[in-house]
Amino acid sequence: MQKTLETDDKPAAKLDFRTARDKYRHWSVSIDGPVAKLIMAVDEDSPFASGYELKLNSYDIGVDVELYDAVQRLRFEHPEVRTVVLISGIDAMFCAGANIRMLGTSSHSHKVNFCKFTNETRNAIEDASRNSGQIYLAALNGTAAGGGYELALATEYLMLIDDGNAAVSLPEVPLLAVLPGTGGLTRLVDKRKVRRDLADVFCTVEEGMKGKRAVDWRLIDETVPRSKFDERVSEKALELAALSDRPEGEAGIMLDRLERSVEDNEIRYPFVTVSLDRDGRSATLDIEAPGSDAPADVDEIKRQGVDFWPLAVIRALDDALLHLRFNEATLGTLIIKTSGDGDRIAAYDALLDANRDDWLVREILLYMQRTYKRLDVTSRTTFAFIEQGSCFFGMLADLLFAVDRSYMLDGQLDDRPAAEIQLSEQNFGTLRMSNGLTRLETRFLDDHETLGNVHKLIGKRLDAREALQAGLITYAPDDIDWEDEIRLLLEERASFSPDALTGMEANLRCAGPETLETKIFGRLSAWQNWIFQRPNAAGTEGALKLYGTGKRAKYDRGRV
Amino acid sequence: MQKTLETDDKPAAKLDFRTARDKYRHWSVSIDGPVAKLIMAVDEDSPFASGYELKLNSYDIGVDVELYDAVQRLRFEHPEVRTVVLISGIDAMFCAGANIRMLGTSSHSHKVNFCKFTNETRNAIEDASRNSGQIYLAALNGTAAGGGYELALATEYLMLIDDGNAAVSLPEVPLLAVLPGTGGLTRLVDKRKVRRDLADVFCTVEEGMKGKRAVDWRLIDETVPRSKFDERVSEKALELAALSDRPEGEAGIMLDRLERSVEDNEIRYPFVTVSLDRDGRSATLDIEAPGSDAPADVDEIKRQGVDFWPLAVIRALDDALLHLRFNEATLGTLIIKTSGDGDRIAAYDALLDANRDDWLVREILLYMQRTYKRLDVTSRTTFAFIEQGSCFFGMLADLLFAVDRSYMLDGQLDDRPAAEIQLSEQNFGTLRMSNGLTRLETRFLDDHETLGNVHKLIGKRLDAREALQAGLITYAPDDIDWEDEIRLLLEERASFSPDALTGMEANLRCAGPETLETKIFGRLSAWQNWIFQRPNAAGTEGALKLYGTGKRAKYDRGRV
Repeated sequence: MQKTLETDDKPAAKLDFRTARDKYRHWSVSIDGPVAKLIMAVDEDSPFASGYELKLNSYDIGVDVELYDAVQRLRFEHPEVRTVVLISGIDAMFCAGANIRMLGTSSHSHKVNFCKFTNETRNAIEDASRNSGQIYLAALNGTAAGGGYELALATEYLMLIDDGNAAVSLPEVPLLAVLPGTGGLTRLVDKRKVRRDLADVFCTVEEGMKGKRAVDWRLIDETVPRSKFDERVSEKALELAALSDRPEGEAGIMLDRLERSVEDNEIRYPFVTVSLDRDGRSATLDIEAPGSDAPADVDEIKRQGVDFWPLAVIRALDDALLHLRFNEATLGTLIIKTSGDGDRIAAYDALLDANRDDWLVREILLYMQRTYKRLDVTSRTTFAFIEQGSCFFGMLADLLFAVDRSYMLDGQLDDRPAAEIQLSEQNFGTLRMSNGLTRLETRFLDDHETLGNVHKLIGKRLDAREALQAGLITYAPDDIDWEDEIRLLLEERASFSPDALTGMEANLRCAGPETLETKIFGRLSAWQNWIFQRPNAAGTEGALKLYGTGKRAKYDRGRV
Repeated sequence: MQKTLETDDKPAAKLDFRTARDKYRHWSVSIDGPVAKLIMAVDEDSPFASGYELKLNSYDIGVDVELYDAVQRLRFEHPEVRTVVLISGIDAMFCAGANIRMLGTSSHSHKVNFCKFTNETRNAIEDASRNSGQIYLAALNGTAAGGGYELALATEYLMLIDDGNAAVSLPEVPLLAVLPGTGGLTRLVDKRKVRRDLADVFCTVEEGMKGKRAVDWRLIDETVPRSKFDERVSEKALELAALSDRPEGEAGIMLDRLERSVEDNEIRYPFVTVSLDRDGRSATLDIEAPGSDAPADVDEIKRQGVDFWPLAVIRALDDALLHLRFNEATLGTLIIKTSGDGDRIAAYDALLDANRDDWLVREILLYMQRTYKRLDVTSRTTFAFIEQGSCFFGMLADLLFAVDRSYMLDGQLDDRPAAEIQLSEQNFGTLRMSNGLTRLETRFLDDHETLGNVHKLIGKRLDAREALQAGLITYAPDDIDWEDEIRLLLEERASFSPDALTGMEANLRCAGPETLETKIFGRLSAWQNWIFQRPNAAGTEGALKLYGTGKRAKYDRGRV
């Protein structure tokens, strides 16, 4: 059944991020030894929502959900794959980018969420290449335009077929009056170091560039005659594979379909429950500690597969965040809680730490890192409530430093164990933010003394006063004040303008250095969001709306 | 006569940035030895435009133009001043920030331009403290709210009077549904290293904070009882003065009123002429080389004062950029040209370089740096045309690396000398961008080999082909193509959406590392611009519009 895309008047169809290879409509995967081909052949008659066709390998959120799934599965299910070749399965077109009619008809909110998710997926591709030994190569066997070229820019090597036609281009500015906002502008100048004046030219030439000039300008790495294209792609793929440190002779673990039940006010996953408070406009994510002790060794982790507690939790958290972003826009506050035995988490942390060089453990930690980053850039207020019986230990303690504020109960409201938190080595290196720092380094920016003192607390159970003293939590209300304080906090937050909070949080969360990722989320996306609000792009006579109608957009000529 | 503020339907009153101390309505300056007091006492009945009163030391563009002028004059006219104390001249209120009614009634474009200019002035304050030995101290003798506290954040030391009432606050989010966008969010977490969760709390507490907690949270440096306030301010001012390297026994140079004539299609300054092409929607800034040889020594520079060619050019360029930004919004393309004897510029460069430790030469170079940065963040397309008889040498050659593209004539159209450019040491250290790099380092990001090769070209006249070969210009059309190419270029650029160009240029211009300044312009401002477009703030029922009416703003509850 055809879904309806969210517009400014209509709510969105519910989006489900769970899929699997045998359900793909737009992508396929073929694996030959160390090389996987990830083949894009978008079914133009299967858009996510009605109202547009996915011509010319253009994409919408449905296409990108499959890409995200494919990238994840290659990492976990295929330890043997060392190079991933992104290639088109249709004739003469690699990818035409985001579907323009979809952009022209969807709501501001959908556009912003869609762009954020596509950015995260492209970052995940870079993460695979750089940290996971699964190196991506763009085999551009046809034109890569707009978001199609931006997808290619997320790979480490771009080969363009020389067939007299195929080109790379970023025609957003001249054609659509929007930005190449899926990392394109940033990756041109900051990743590929394209000279800024040449980048300016390139971004205003609708038809793009090809051949020697595209190589000279660093837009691509290589141009290859049609007759030699397949051979050269294979050769380069094997060359990149040789650089990889992926393991030999290991079996992958299957990402079985994530179990979940979605009720109106509750979503349940293994180890994660999301409670929705629609009147209070908040959602509470409750993470349960493992129900049994940590496995003895890495072999046992592999036997457990997706049931291995850290992986199960991260998969659930990832899905929950995406679900809330796309399907529950009015729940402006996310509350994170935990429950269970913290010592068990400490034992899981120790197990992960001791086996961090194992390919699967590395994948799990990288996935945790990506998911925590997804929380960082989620445009909702995030609070952590540290209550009795909670277990913000080690990898879960890092969530305390991801949220906007944390509240820890100083006292007893019932018979459960008093609230305690505990740090582990995970908080000091494994889980980095997009700015390249750990969350504690960002929290205590340039304050090496405090950071050193906090490091000494590893493995020590901290009560509310100790945690407050160490600067690890925001507030520690006592048992008399707790309920009132929490209630007032949530009411107050819900009374503020959601937009102002989004802007405020986006700025306060990102102290410290900047990277490609932070530039894409903080700078490029903010400008794109602004443009998405401007009549020149999104008005009834704006370029996005009129594209394909043959009518010319009318622009307000004032420069702002 | 009362002016009219630009609204979304009405054009702005022309804004003149030239003023002088005896014309100030809102500020006064008193100097006592090495300490200057810069006293804010806003005349509420003298707003820049009609429709609002400047109560509680709130400011509008008129107030900030005076502040900008005062900061400049202190640097140039008072070499003896080593500490500048920012203080209020009205009772119990340091500054209430930008006037809210002015924000609520002004156009999007005015808001954006206003915020950019106020940000530049606050950056200039930091520049004075850090690079010019004129250290700013905020003596908060009353509440500093919103933009008032942001102004204080631009100083190096914040003292707050302890009178039971005075507080510092950023109430924008809870009260107005906009951001503390004049650097506030960025300076909290990145300059003062306020912990992000505490910053989150602080930015949502309307009434702000004071006393010990404000110190503990790093919001201020010191709280001082009322009875000891004046004494302690004096003491601290002298303490900071002792850190300064400003000279002893030197006379300042007076910033006499900048001469200019403004006609409908032309603005003339000494050494700079701006020609406005309203049909083509562009403005050409033509910079003339000095008419005589460089002075023999630094004493002669001081005798020439504002007539010293580099200072005269920079003052004109600064004023022209501000004039075009505020008064000529539809001229979307700025073209930079030069004319005259390049060897003379090389001689001026050598003179500046040889005397860079002199306080006045340092001021001139810092002012040049600030003005070039103003060009970097000006939301207009910038092109340089290097024609016959031009003189893009040294300090003027840096403009070639500031613009979006440069075109150099390869051939002869008339009898004037062929186009040539020449580098000097100025291009390799003196003139840094907001990202902390020189424009050439940004242009050849991380490409040390090319940068090394370019360095070897210092002092060598380069023709179009050599300049192109070295990567110093974008294009070198020949004499047959020149006119057509330039005409088509300008027509094409004028056909694009101004908003999309603004967003594109903001992203392509800032490759490389980020700093407080780039974060403020690239990230914070982009989010603020987005919010300024959103109904929750700027709609008819938005918080900015309804402030002071007693009505409650209506918010769309969707999170984007």
